[in-house]
Amino acid sequence: MKKTKKFLLSENEIPEQWYNIQADMPNAMLPPLHPGTKQPIGPEDLAPLFPMELIKQEVSKERWIDIPEEVRDIYKMWRPTPLYRAYNLEKLLDTPAKIYYKYEGVSPAGSHKPNTAVAQAYYNKAEGVKKLTTETGAGQWGSALAFACQTFGMELEVYMVKISYDQKPYRKSMMNVWGAEVFSSPTNKTESGRKILAANPDSPGSLGIAISEAVERAATSANTKYSLGSVLNHVLMHQTVIGLEAVKQFEKAGDFPDIVIAPFGGGSNFAGISFPFLKYNLTEGKNIRCIAVEPASCPKLTRGEFRYDFGDTVGLTPLLPMYTLGHTFVPAPIHAGGLRYHGAGVIVSQLLKDKIIEASAMQQLECFDAGVKFARTEGIIPAPEATHGIAQVFREAEKAKQEGKSKTILFNLCGHGYFDMSAYSDYFAGKLVDHELTDDELYSGLKELNLHPVE
Amino acid sequence: MKKTKKFLLSENEIPEQWYNIQADMPNAMLPPLHPGTKQPIGPEDLAPLFPMELIKQEVSKERWIDIPEEVRDIYKMWRPTPLYRAYNLEKLLDTPAKIYYKYEGVSPAGSHKPNTAVAQAYYNKAEGVKKLTTETGAGQWGSALAFACQTFGMELEVYMVKISYDQKPYRKSMMNVWGAEVFSSPTNKTESGRKILAANPDSPGSLGIAISEAVERAATSANTKYSLGSVLNHVLMHQTVIGLEAVKQFEKAGDFPDIVIAPFGGGSNFAGISFPFLKYNLTEGKNIRCIAVEPASCPKLTRGEFRYDFGDTVGLTPLLPMYTLGHTFVPAPIHAGGLRYHGAGVIVSQLLKDKIIEASAMQQLECFDAGVKFARTEGIIPAPEATHGIAQVFREAEKAKQEGKSKTILFNLCGHGYFDMSAYSDYFAGKLVDHELTDDELYSGLKELNLHPVE
Repeated sequence: MKKTKKFLLSENEIPEQWYNIQADMPNAMLPPLHPGTKQPIGPEDLAPLFPMELIKQEVSKERWIDIPEEVRDIYKMWRPTPLYRAYNLEKLLDTPAKIYYKYEGVSPAGSHKPNTAVAQAYYNKAEGVKKLTTETGAGQWGSALAFACQTFGMELEVYMVKISYDQKPYRKSMMNVWGAEVFSSPTNKTESGRKILAANPDSPGSLGIAISEAVERAATSANTKYSLGSVLNHVLMHQTVIGLEAVKQFEKAGDFPDIVIAPFGGGSNFAGISFPFLKYNLTEGKNIRCIAVEPASCPKLTRGEFRYDFGDTVGLTPLLPMYTLGHTFVPAPIHAGGLRYHGAGVIVSQLLKDKIIEASAMQQLECFDAGVKFARTEGIIPAPEATHGIAQVFREAEKAKQEGKSKTILFNLCGHGYFDMSAYSDYFAGKLVDHELTDDELYSGLKELNLHPVE
Repeated sequence: MKKTKKFLLSENEIPEQWYNIQADMPNAMLPPLHPGTKQPIGPEDLAPLFPMELIKQEVSKERWIDIPEEVRDIYKMWRPTPLYRAYNLEKLLDTPAKIYYKYEGVSPAGSHKPNTAVAQAYYNKAEGVKKLTTETGAGQWGSALAFACQTFGMELEVYMVKISYDQKPYRKSMMNVWGAEVFSSPTNKTESGRKILAANPDSPGSLGIAISEAVERAATSANTKYSLGSVLNHVLMHQTVIGLEAVKQFEKAGDFPDIVIAPFGGGSNFAGISFPFLKYNLTEGKNIRCIAVEPASCPKLTRGEFRYDFGDTVGLTPLLPMYTLGHTFVPAPIHAGGLRYHGAGVIVSQLLKDKIIEASAMQQLECFDAGVKFARTEGIIPAPEATHGIAQVFREAEKAKQEGKSKTILFNLCGHGYFDMSAYSDYFAGKLVDHELTDDELYSGLKELNLHPVE
């Protein structure tokens, strides 16, 4: 019992404010543009979709934004989450690096997603909204928002990508337990869905299509708004509770990270763990390396272009300035469904452009190999998304060994893999393959981007 | 933030000793008998199956038994587990009762089972055993032991009931992640399995058959022993870490339970939470009600007989004095697979006979209804086994309301339901039914018992 494995905080150490990195970014972001006029949009353009408080947060330059008491009260159900020292993994890797992980899988929905779902449901409820709509791929986000809406007594419509709806019935059951209505997207309920089905009645759906459907429903229904689980500035900010807790936990551990790592889909997971540490780089001249790890089959950060692009497939959302593969890009069907999105969050894109953060791309076999080794040493079976971060940790631990340096590495274990065991079965059965994205495949999405202004 | 939701302990508050209730029981238990001679067995009879340290624990009258440092070190991966105050549930039930739950689902395998799995793997390893064998039904126990064996670098063979092996592939994947070999039982690997298959090539298997196979393999293989996840005295004792932590947590909460509730399969879950509280009844004259909740379709405590019976179907184990439905009894296929066992642990049987504890039987629809309400208020989706305890909590909370008394109720939320979402789907689809066990069905198992001495 000499070594401390878990660094815990008490409920009154749950952060009282979110950290808004917009206050400290050296370069401001380009504005979102109206899809029709191509002019910068104002709050009134977003009002049909989001409550005013979230629209304010989206553009706020305040460094700290208060977390409402009601939201912190719900966070208490699972927060503060533990910070673990991965002694067993360090031993396996035979590395001088010290490895820590923050574990967000203890939340009701099993991932970091409820951190923003609860906040979004709260602000909508406070402004009289009765129902939310959203999309979900593998189901992590949909189940998080279902939990949050249940908690505040709100209704929820989830547009779940058809292929996941058919293949992952258990995430759907989870959403049903929390009272959400779940539809297989594309549906006949929306103009967007009908358009897709007319062109291809057997469409397997995509996250981009499901977003179009959810956005359309919110825009055309009374007392109904839309909720997104990543990409947007306010969503990323809500996740900073993760990193803010980790800062306090490192104080208790008497240590501090040299490297912070997280998987990258739209940016919420990466922002959540890294922004509170990046603050030390931006305001105190520290030099912590923050690495976003994306799947090699969906490499917007490492092979995409920095351009204005839509957030959805049909083109209903504002144009956002981001690293993107093009909103028509269809990634290979890898098992980390939560990372198969064509664009990167606007803040993260700007930070990468300004070389304030790093990005890395990872094939799925390397990820599953790392994930299984992690489960065998640390006991937690990681979600396929989370294994991307773990694989990068393995690379950095090996580098530390080669260099003979004792780096301190932190990564965000954003969720457990209990709903993804079929992926592990496929991995053990040798059914998973890596996908080398060709330049032609890459260009198929990027060529569309010429339609939009560069900056 | 005024109300404290979670009562946490630090790692150095993990108990240093297990509580052995054998020291405080008013009446000694009857001895186990050799299946052939019908004479009391000695340690040498158990030596082919268990390491000597566990055989000693099985019959020890010492009140406190040290938890090895190495075991506590692994417990640190998830222990101490949180004690929650169920404010939201109390509000829903509109009850003056105060409801607390201890949550064991935070363990790597998602249930309380690793508490004993780790201890058993440790003692076997310490005595030079290279491989363990075990049985598993729904897979909770098999995955817990797979995790434990992986941790100590031991091999494991799991005999998984065929019908579960086919219907629950994800628990199997979980065992594979932790390196276990999993076989669909009955197999052709054992005499017991071949005998069953000869009589019925399409046998769906049963826990009793799988135990016969695992026991036979251990008895006939070099450096191999057998491990059981419930029923036996040492197994129940290892689980007392749960209740011992809860006692400390109630100190922090400034409260103390009037009623302690747990689901009942073989007894390990119930013993784990209740024995450290029963100690106050047995040694300090307190009067805490401890209630074991079994499924109405497998009612050994409420409708079984107190008799000597086998632990397995084929009849390889010693005869144990217990409440039983007969070792040939086949319970209806309810979704709480972990509670479908014909007999009750010997200690629990004696305590019930002596009226020191209470028992209750519950139909599955009442359980699922309570489970869904729990998930909607407290955010955690309980395993079907765990819903039995929750349904009893609902009854006691209603009683407190009727009586206008503010009782303090504690229950053990022994595991999450993330691997059981198909059960919830079936429940929502109206596919689940209650099963009223007829006297004839009951007698079908009990009549076999006339072959064995009563006491």
